[in-house]
Amino acid sequence: MTNARRSRKPRVAAGAVGSKPGLRIIPLGGLGEVGKNLTAIEYGDDIIVIDCGLKFPEEEMLGIDFVIPDVRYLAENRTRIRGIFLTHGHEDHIGAIPLVLPRLDVPLYGTPLSVALVENKMLDARASYKPRYFHIQAGQTIKAGCFEVGFIRVAHSIPDSLAIYVRTPAGIVLHSGDFKLDMTPLWGEDGTDLAALAELGREGVMLLLSDSTNSERSGFTPSESSVGRSFEDIFRTHKDRRIVIAAFASNLYRASQVFAVASRFNRHVMLVGRSMISYVDLALKLGYMDIPSGLLVTPQEAERLTPNRTVVLTTGSQGEPFSGLVLMSKGEHKQIRLGERDLVVISATPIPGNEKLVSNTVNRLFVAGCDVIYEREHAVHVSGHASREEQKILLNLVKPKYFMPVHGEYRHLVRHSQLAAEMGIPSKNIFVMQNGDVLEFDQNGKGMVGAKVHSGAVLVDGMMLGEFEGSLLRERKELSESGILAVSVVLDEEYRMVDELQIDSRGSIYGFDREHMRPDVELAVERALESVRSGAVDRASLPAEIRKKIRESIGRNYRAYPGIIPLISVLGQNGRHDANATPKEAKTPRRNPRSRARSPRAADV
Amino acid sequence: MTNARRSRKPRVAAGAVGSKPGLRIIPLGGLGEVGKNLTAIEYGDDIIVIDCGLKFPEEEMLGIDFVIPDVRYLAENRTRIRGIFLTHGHEDHIGAIPLVLPRLDVPLYGTPLSVALVENKMLDARASYKPRYFHIQAGQTIKAGCFEVGFIRVAHSIPDSLAIYVRTPAGIVLHSGDFKLDMTPLWGEDGTDLAALAELGREGVMLLLSDSTNSERSGFTPSESSVGRSFEDIFRTHKDRRIVIAAFASNLYRASQVFAVASRFNRHVMLVGRSMISYVDLALKLGYMDIPSGLLVTPQEAERLTPNRTVVLTTGSQGEPFSGLVLMSKGEHKQIRLGERDLVVISATPIPGNEKLVSNTVNRLFVAGCDVIYEREHAVHVSGHASREEQKILLNLVKPKYFMPVHGEYRHLVRHSQLAAEMGIPSKNIFVMQNGDVLEFDQNGKGMVGAKVHSGAVLVDGMMLGEFEGSLLRERKELSESGILAVSVVLDEEYRMVDELQIDSRGSIYGFDREHMRPDVELAVERALESVRSGAVDRASLPAEIRKKIRESIGRNYRAYPGIIPLISVLGQNGRHDANATPKEAKTPRRNPRSRARSPRAADV
Repeated sequence: MTNARRSRKPRVAAGAVGSKPGLRIIPLGGLGEVGKNLTAIEYGDDIIVIDCGLKFPEEEMLGIDFVIPDVRYLAENRTRIRGIFLTHGHEDHIGAIPLVLPRLDVPLYGTPLSVALVENKMLDARASYKPRYFHIQAGQTIKAGCFEVGFIRVAHSIPDSLAIYVRTPAGIVLHSGDFKLDMTPLWGEDGTDLAALAELGREGVMLLLSDSTNSERSGFTPSESSVGRSFEDIFRTHKDRRIVIAAFASNLYRASQVFAVASRFNRHVMLVGRSMISYVDLALKLGYMDIPSGLLVTPQEAERLTPNRTVVLTTGSQGEPFSGLVLMSKGEHKQIRLGERDLVVISATPIPGNEKLVSNTVNRLFVAGCDVIYEREHAVHVSGHASREEQKILLNLVKPKYFMPVHGEYRHLVRHSQLAAEMGIPSKNIFVMQNGDVLEFDQNGKGMVGAKVHSGAVLVDGMMLGEFEGSLLRERKELSESGILAVSVVLDEEYRMVDELQIDSRGSIYGFDREHMRPDVELAVERALESVRSGAVDRASLPAEIRKKIRESIGRNYRAYPGIIPLISVLGQNGRHDANATPKEAKTPRRNPRSRARSPRAADV
Repeated sequence: MTNARRSRKPRVAAGAVGSKPGLRIIPLGGLGEVGKNLTAIEYGDDIIVIDCGLKFPEEEMLGIDFVIPDVRYLAENRTRIRGIFLTHGHEDHIGAIPLVLPRLDVPLYGTPLSVALVENKMLDARASYKPRYFHIQAGQTIKAGCFEVGFIRVAHSIPDSLAIYVRTPAGIVLHSGDFKLDMTPLWGEDGTDLAALAELGREGVMLLLSDSTNSERSGFTPSESSVGRSFEDIFRTHKDRRIVIAAFASNLYRASQVFAVASRFNRHVMLVGRSMISYVDLALKLGYMDIPSGLLVTPQEAERLTPNRTVVLTTGSQGEPFSGLVLMSKGEHKQIRLGERDLVVISATPIPGNEKLVSNTVNRLFVAGCDVIYEREHAVHVSGHASREEQKILLNLVKPKYFMPVHGEYRHLVRHSQLAAEMGIPSKNIFVMQNGDVLEFDQNGKGMVGAKVHSGAVLVDGMMLGEFEGSLLRERKELSESGILAVSVVLDEEYRMVDELQIDSRGSIYGFDREHMRPDVELAVERALESVRSGAVDRASLPAEIRKKIRESIGRNYRAYPGIIPLISVLGQNGRHDANATPKEAKTPRRNPRSRARSPRAADV
């Protein structure tokens, strides 16, 4: 960034905005994390939203299917939202739409591929809501309230990806989307449109939000087409083997290169994995790719070919349980049995958190006798995100006054901000923010981080949405480490047991030693009852007392600490259920306001 | 390996061995995995054991503290064992000793540091068993039955590390231990003794077992002393900051370099973390290192110094919960509060599986405002294991007839075997084996993989050792994903409920919607009771029927699938406990024979 650029006067907000503030940038997801990308841009009475993605659960989010941004702020302001605009069709950019869109009921804008992928998701979710879809394309602009929204082609690991710029009364905001600067894109028109970015830069960009995913990676990300050359080398040196290639289903460029190389080497391609088949189907239907007729074969047709005439293109590059490659590696795939005549190519790198799954898959493939090409060994994968030199080129072309790194863990944002500072953007104009922080621009075009809006993570488990305040996950973690012991105690009015103790357990070492431990449990319960009968402990505290006594006893004797659920029936009296009104019940967590309404019953049992 | 070498006649077994087979190499741990290294070498009536390590649990081993090798084979042959010999003092080589040694009761041989670390472990485990320790050192040989056992110094990431060779009647077996070829070791005498290895090679090594950890890494592993130079650069450029360095406590070379650089830059060192303090104490006590007096300061003394006069050397380089660095990153450390004047150096790379923990720690440090140096950025860490070129040099010096890669996942073993083949060892002389496989040598010195012996993993959870056959872990996994719902049903003789249903849950979304779900649960139980009362289901099947009905109901209505524990009391009849004899109880897993004896009671409740 030159001094000339820095001295240029910022564009000043046009027209009065009454009591409403000027321009506000509100990231509700994607900062300090990888996934659930969602950014709101607000001016006066108008809001637009860029992307609406999900995040895959962290390891400690036991039993959680996925995580979406908390959009309470948008719901409260839904009448002001002029539309959701999608940069591209990856899950971390569109995955929350089936849950968020029906609630907001606003128009949805995306390229044909992004919209088609959202449509599939709505069908999968069996949502009855019918979205209002609008197709957009690079070069086009759209009026949305006081905003003019425009689109610039960028290269990424899924076709039809866009950067989105917004002409606001306060100046131009450019959101890079996920991007890289592929100079030799596989499909000629899919390269990042540097000229359009430069033109926007000349017009004057007030704020750039830019993809930070690879801000720890120096140099340039290689071109997607370099992978095709690696495939060629591999096909040439392994003419006698069946070749199995695992890749991300959404990377249609990768599939396309497999088809091209297979065709050149006179091999047929068999697709494995639900999502692989569905993405290729969609791409053919929408005309994103052409395949020579007869290239694709069914499993039955493949069986009649000699293995070295075939290529298997499969899911499972992340070691996902039940994916094509994983089933093959375990010898559990219905159609494909791998052995010494097979070469497996894993055309992907593990996403952070998946390292172990991928490593286990590679080990199993070696045990099965396959040869395996994986990780960076043969340049069989390239990232879809810009490395540091590319991030610099974008900054150089766009020359923004203000800079806000997005899409990445906090360290990625910090590294990206350091890079922007090296490029000459003054530190005070660089904003490393967290979800819910609001970047506000005053009437003089001066940016600052203002008040926060409500933001957060909504965990999705089956049909249930909730914030859970950590208590559900804490309980699951305890269960997973120590298991649970349930005891049922049937008492008469004098708190004497009228039936033998019923005990059962799950995931506790008690289950393996129950005959040995039973007397300890019985004695502990009897002691708790004595405390109540003697008046030392009041009746309402019996469950807590039972938990305490059992925990002490088997903790001391077996160093085992299962959770304990006492269920107490007191026969022949009124108010018998007081016995179960334990302190634990008091911390039933605050429920998310949009989960189902509570029944009017007040007492917890 | 030259052709000349390959044509050399193998040493033939000396003397008759009666009905016993000749030489047998029996790996009971460390193949196809990282950790729990244990190899037995057997000839006739004699067995020696090399190393006896633990493995840290896999992610899916919920609640498991650590894993040790199943040593049933050794226990059955304990009278033939002449000793356990330790290559070095890392947990994956000594960690199983407190549990295994008392059972075998054989002599234990190790360098002074290894033995001291075992002694500490025995104290920690509060084991009453008093081991018979013997100190060994490089250059020495020891008679052990028909074996002569010798020791060669190797460089590694803990001092006093050895390769171990065994002169057997069938030829020489060399076990590399964990090693690298550091040409500029920090402490002069700690380099790998290449001359001794070459001499052994000239004498003729029949079999080499060699460390495969880094067999995917090309080139050479840098010298430990290169880290000191990086530290110097960092200290020179950050004169105004406090410097916090996180490292493995067992890497005394690393600590030693921190002390040296701190001393040169006139800083004092404060130690943080129980294991950091204890390793440094031990090293000083045993004379492994010297520290200028006054260099080390207590937290109280450190507080009186300006921060840029101090260095903090801490545990937590792997992001371990409750470790020094993690507590600091969370602002929870009692003595140290980090901020913008601090530079944190993570002098380690994440062990596979720890990536996320380390990454989260780095993110928190950035949020706290620190600068952070991590991963390969500044050469602040080197591995302790040989890379491919070093593995080749060892093979070249030793020129073994047979080769067996050890210490590594299956893919590491395969890569190492490919390297050995490139070096000219015939494929038929290379053995990629799994734990429990036995490599046998016949009277002509011909090696082959013969029958298997019993091997496996023993999971350690508190005081309990068990194989658990996966059922405990399966239950914990189910609990962790879906939680548990316990119901207690009190019935009269006609199987009518005499008290209201008692229900409680943990980790289930039921807990968040219990008032809403309660009628569903009650209805489900009532339906199950009707089935029993009508005779459609027999009484013994009531628990299964209750589980089924509840599962159907809340699965359908809430897509929630908690485990269900029904506890049933039938009042006023004999044989009432039949009601709880469910099919589930039948699959109580086979218990490990050495876990506590069962009580004579036969019926499960």
